[in-house]
Amino acid sequence: MAKLSNGTISVIFVAQRTELDADGYAKAAAMMSELAAQQDGYIGIDSTRGTDGLGITISYWTDEASAKAWRDHPDHSAIRDAGRDLWYSDYSLHVAKVTRSYDWKKA
Amino acid sequence: MAKLSNGTISVIFVAQRTELDADGYAKAAAMMSELAAQQDGYIGIDSTRGTDGLGITISYWTDEASAKAWRDHPDHSAIRDAGRDLWYSDYSLHVAKVTRSYDWKKA
Repeated sequence: MAKLSNGTISVIFVAQRTELDADGYAKAAAMMSELAAQQDGYIGIDSTRGTDGLGITISYWTDEASAKAWRDHPDHSAIRDAGRDLWYSDYSLHVAKVTRSYDWKKA
Repeated sequence: MAKLSNGTISVIFVAQRTELDADGYAKAAAMMSELAAQQDGYIGIDSTRGTDGLGITISYWTDEASAKAWRDHPDHSAIRDAGRDLWYSDYSLHVAKVTRSYDWKKA
């Protein structure tokens, strides 16, 4: 994401994938990205995963209320159970409020 | 990182690698990780990069002052120039204060 406004809510999800259900996971991840982007207050997402299966996804929201509404979205909650059953061996999730932001691009 | 205390400062660095100087980059990245870990207020780091060269690194600090001291560390500042000259085509950096945090591990 480019430079963010102060007060933007970042939801940092750091998760270790198991080797299970690659197809199901890929489908669900694509579905969730699409659904998140349709929610009120969605700003954008940064996401990457290394070949060791460690992934970091950060979604950005205009305020706490939209971040919480996405957390509580029924489809998102349902998919979380599959995450714990199949896709992840461990994860952490941190919600953090942006206080400074910069971006840079090669001229 | 496991569950973080509220008020923890997260420094989110999202960067697209060029294809230049893989060896120099790997050496510098290892050096910077080691040096960061020696700084006052350092809590830990999460870092991953996809095969497309997009990397996300988040470092966690006990407070703003330690995050800023690391930003201003002379060795860290020097390496930043190499980052712009050689290693990155674009990046963004967001500083954000943790307001909620969870972790989960398969039983």
